[in-house]
Amino acid sequence: MLTVSAPGKVILFGEHAVVYGEPALVGTIERRVRVGVRRLDEKVINVYSDAIGTWESFTFEDLHETNGAFRYVKRAVSIAFEEVGEKTGLELRISSELPPASGLGSSAAVSVATLKAVLTLLGKDVSNSRLAALAHCVELEVQGSASPTDTAAATYGGVLFVLPGKGIERLNVEEELPLIVGNTQKERSTKLLVAKVRRLKESLPEVVDPVIRNIGKVTREARRCLEKGELTHLGELMNINHGLLEALGVSTPELSRLVYIARSAGAEGAKLTGAGGGGCMLAFARERYDSVLEALSKESQALQASITFEGVRVEGGER
Amino acid sequence: MLTVSAPGKVILFGEHAVVYGEPALVGTIERRVRVGVRRLDEKVINVYSDAIGTWESFTFEDLHETNGAFRYVKRAVSIAFEEVGEKTGLELRISSELPPASGLGSSAAVSVATLKAVLTLLGKDVSNSRLAALAHCVELEVQGSASPTDTAAATYGGVLFVLPGKGIERLNVEEELPLIVGNTQKERSTKLLVAKVRRLKESLPEVVDPVIRNIGKVTREARRCLEKGELTHLGELMNINHGLLEALGVSTPELSRLVYIARSAGAEGAKLTGAGGGGCMLAFARERYDSVLEALSKESQALQASITFEGVRVEGGER
Repeated sequence: MLTVSAPGKVILFGEHAVVYGEPALVGTIERRVRVGVRRLDEKVINVYSDAIGTWESFTFEDLHETNGAFRYVKRAVSIAFEEVGEKTGLELRISSELPPASGLGSSAAVSVATLKAVLTLLGKDVSNSRLAALAHCVELEVQGSASPTDTAAATYGGVLFVLPGKGIERLNVEEELPLIVGNTQKERSTKLLVAKVRRLKESLPEVVDPVIRNIGKVTREARRCLEKGELTHLGELMNINHGLLEALGVSTPELSRLVYIARSAGAEGAKLTGAGGGGCMLAFARERYDSVLEALSKESQALQASITFEGVRVEGGER
Repeated sequence: MLTVSAPGKVILFGEHAVVYGEPALVGTIERRVRVGVRRLDEKVINVYSDAIGTWESFTFEDLHETNGAFRYVKRAVSIAFEEVGEKTGLELRISSELPPASGLGSSAAVSVATLKAVLTLLGKDVSNSRLAALAHCVELEVQGSASPTDTAAATYGGVLFVLPGKGIERLNVEEELPLIVGNTQKERSTKLLVAKVRRLKESLPEVVDPVIRNIGKVTREARRCLEKGELTHLGELMNINHGLLEALGVSTPELSRLVYIARSAGAEGAKLTGAGGGGCMLAFARERYDSVLEALSKESQALQASITFEGVRVEGGER
């Protein structure tokens, strides 16, 4: 079975402010989605998911659907078929080290890995920029709207600087970034949280606009630190970014608690990551990685999530 | 016994930023220090404190000391004697509704009430501006350095707008401000916390300076709301101010927890008040005052601390 993997991601800096034109920094983490694929003689697409613990069988017709547990897989297979100009029966096996719907980019990783696996199986070599564009289409079709960031991250890997309207730049970062994700496992809606910040911004623009611009400044400063390999202030910048997100009203008691647990256990910095209102937080710990991991594990679903510089990858197996 | 009272205070907005020239808003709370005084024939000053549960006897010579549990009382009596040009034996009885060393201005209230009590007993009528100046001297002598804010607040009462270098303005606010103070009872050093913010500001000026200026903007906006009697956004402004203080690194797990407990119980806004690093937080609740008070009482030493518009006051009793 031909196997392809793609990494998940965390937002390192700049969430919410990116909605208003400020930059964001995103890093891919060594937590991957793996998609195995082989040809079937029958004209069906059988999808097995270790992640969900279930399987389904689809006709070629079913691939046009944008709903169901396998909606990203269906659209990715369909778009891969269009790209190659060929359809075939397939068996797909999906496993994931990423908790779903947690803001860690699992749907983008599924889309990228599925596309790459099917394209490779069918002998079609595509550039990374083409792959990222196709995966972005998958997310757009399923979600209605989607940022190109997650799919670009899953494709290229590494640390990406996202400047809305100006594109996505892969940074030349080589430092190890030992990160831990704490997951509150509280569901939240990104849409509702973006709307909440918009309401606050509209009711108190004189004080909220500067908070958003300040997040942009923190993100640019963090980029400078990362590119120079000067990580001394990176933790402080995360703490400042977290405070500014508190000011925007998107933190929660649980997120705030995990952030303080991480800092007390020795993290150099900790912040919520993603939309807030639940979901995940992020801790940066070079010296006391194990004690931070242990402290966060006691109180949440904690993941080792250090930055990886490798994006989508053909793991091997027969075509 | 002639009794004089003076109120404690909370910082409503602008702590820490005020160190860098931004304005602060301070409000006096209906929690008072009471000082009773009567003449003694012997040349001694006997001080009884219900607050500390102890008493001491001083000679006129002892009044020059700036140490000991009664250091503010000793200096206040001494300065009152100088002001009048007369010394006499005294009995003083002190009671307080303010927890000591919690950033609620108990030392300023003690200084103001003691001065006013002794001056009134000795038949000397002084203006409020003179009284505030004398009380500021007491704090300066005991502490080495002191802002004139707390002593001005204890003297005048109400809501004060403090603009460093430009003076203190008493605002024309008439709205009721139902506040609750949650006290972590964790000791902190204002000096160390001010130094901590200074270090952060020096190491990352591009991102910390805007946080400080943003706190100034929040404070000015809060002043506008208070003067117009438009309290709708006051809670949101408190929440934003708290987030910005989190960004400056002066909150703690305990303060953050109490802030979220208050918000969850229905507070319109909640923030740490004072230097942070322990000490107190403040909740604003018009609709759900009782449930916020109850929730904070379970987890801390909670005080009803609504804004009072009355400063130092001769309560009565014989001269």
